[in-house]
Amino acid sequence: MKPEDRFVEKLRALLPKADAVSIGPGDDAAVIAREAGLLVATTDLLVEGVDFFPGEDPERLGRRAAAVNLSDLAAMGAEPEFFLLSIAFPSAKGDSFPLAVARGAIARAGAFGAQLVGGDLSSASQTVLSIALWGKPVGSLLRRSGAAVGDRLYLSGHPGEAAAGLLLARRLAAFADQGSAPTPRFPEISAGDQRRLLEAYHDPTPRIGLGLSLSRERLASAAIDISDGLGVDAGRLARASGVRLVLEADRLPASSALFSFAAMEDLDPLDLMIGGGDDYELLFAVRPQDEARLEEHAGAFGVPVTRIGRAERGGGAVLRDSRGERDVAELGHDHLESPR
Amino acid sequence: MKPEDRFVEKLRALLPKADAVSIGPGDDAAVIAREAGLLVATTDLLVEGVDFFPGEDPERLGRRAAAVNLSDLAAMGAEPEFFLLSIAFPSAKGDSFPLAVARGAIARAGAFGAQLVGGDLSSASQTVLSIALWGKPVGSLLRRSGAAVGDRLYLSGHPGEAAAGLLLARRLAAFADQGSAPTPRFPEISAGDQRRLLEAYHDPTPRIGLGLSLSRERLASAAIDISDGLGVDAGRLARASGVRLVLEADRLPASSALFSFAAMEDLDPLDLMIGGGDDYELLFAVRPQDEARLEEHAGAFGVPVTRIGRAERGGGAVLRDSRGERDVAELGHDHLESPR
Repeated sequence: MKPEDRFVEKLRALLPKADAVSIGPGDDAAVIAREAGLLVATTDLLVEGVDFFPGEDPERLGRRAAAVNLSDLAAMGAEPEFFLLSIAFPSAKGDSFPLAVARGAIARAGAFGAQLVGGDLSSASQTVLSIALWGKPVGSLLRRSGAAVGDRLYLSGHPGEAAAGLLLARRLAAFADQGSAPTPRFPEISAGDQRRLLEAYHDPTPRIGLGLSLSRERLASAAIDISDGLGVDAGRLARASGVRLVLEADRLPASSALFSFAAMEDLDPLDLMIGGGDDYELLFAVRPQDEARLEEHAGAFGVPVTRIGRAERGGGAVLRDSRGERDVAELGHDHLESPR
Repeated sequence: MKPEDRFVEKLRALLPKADAVSIGPGDDAAVIAREAGLLVATTDLLVEGVDFFPGEDPERLGRRAAAVNLSDLAAMGAEPEFFLLSIAFPSAKGDSFPLAVARGAIARAGAFGAQLVGGDLSSASQTVLSIALWGKPVGSLLRRSGAAVGDRLYLSGHPGEAAAGLLLARRLAAFADQGSAPTPRFPEISAGDQRRLLEAYHDPTPRIGLGLSLSRERLASAAIDISDGLGVDAGRLARASGVRLVLEADRLPASSALFSFAAMEDLDPLDLMIGGGDDYELLFAVRPQDEARLEEHAGAFGVPVTRIGRAERGGGAVLRDSRGERDVAELGHDHLESPR
């Protein structure tokens, strides 16, 4: 269990039992039963030097901060409504910095129907962005805890691209520090693939359309976003559901951009896919009898989905290939471990 | 206008007009009309070295972070319901640090009916706490914008005590750095008064009872909390309401603890009361015809309230004494100015 998961367990022990809290700490977002109906709420911090590079474009940062939070609502099957944005930043950056962050967040969240309603500013030596976002359920909530033995495991998009994008961005930043042109080309990888990987890291797309479809059509028995890494987040879904998740290596949807990058850097694409992190894709479980309906609705998801494995009796998350199985439930990021 | 207020004006210009947002950025909290009813939301950041001392007791920090947010709901007349807590901190502090922060926040908010429902953790070089707090209105909302010419101006509690407590805490920290006993006594000021001032800074009491009474009984035409300083926050209420606020120097409720401290430090108690900041008291306007009802309900407020001035035609906020008037609308903190 990751330090962050242990923290959540300790925290839960501190909390009084509250009838209004349907889902408290430990899922992608909280669900609160108010007299006036269910509310789904989430919050995420982005810290300079930990979650983003110093000196990154502030508008893109704002977009990314919004996307990270939107992804949590996608993973619950909730429709985004409103958000609060707080920014701690070195005052030497001036007024234009938080305004640009806000502009990016407003645009990104606005595209999915969520409006900025307030926030806070403070000076700080290190930039920290904090967003709290809430929305409402549209169908059955997508919890982490509903997967059953025999369910099929599905994944949206192409994991590992964000991790590849981060490594590529670091290479480019190192070139820039040496005074080279800002976007040097690597001959081993096409310009289009480079853009694709960089965008996967810098400007991820939250899977709101997919989450809402799964929720509305009751297609998924459980879901989680894999922002910390496919391995560790599969482990979380397995633990919450009380099943063992088996990921099949030859089913994982590696993109050609990822393959090109991994070949250039002499990395195993599987390592990037399983433990890379920063992929705002959804991992979800589907009952065997719902698979046909899933395919019927796939056109509305806005992203391809791939069957990558299944839930079995037991616990943990493993990757299976021709040589056997290996444990992947600890592979990924923990925000309490040292900076990336 | 303070830099933070200018920022809010610029930010508002970026926002699309949204029918659901009754009150957006620029009041103590946001008010959102959801299909399912009104929701009042606020968020505040606390940054190490800006809003609190490095090395402060984490449980007390958690209490303070909760109180700062609760105060915003008090100033809207809303009943606290639930909150999210995010903590960025140096990982060397270990798990026990965020848990202690959470314990303090849970206790402080729980006493006013608000439950922790989630949050986020991240490592960072500088500790930053971020809380988002929600609640519901119980009567007429207390906006900043309702004061009219002729309204009486009231204030809860004893402003300046938190600023005095902060100065006192700095003196004590300096002693501690020199290796002295942790709580040396100053002969000029009683131990009880010292505790009172330190508590006003470290563990302020949000005026939820007062805010709810004012809202339920429709006793206030406008309200704001004076966390940034009585002067600057009076200026904000004046600007939002389109009136001139006149504070009468000889009516300001200075406590004997404040007088003792000011005498010891050779400070003007008025300066601490007007521009000190960190007082989580409510400044509110009352129609002349409602003053009798206000006195009837005063027993339920949980804090003394004092009439300190009135609203006149014009703009700005001034302090009036026997020598005349002086502008106070810029006196207080701005979170975008240099650290305190």
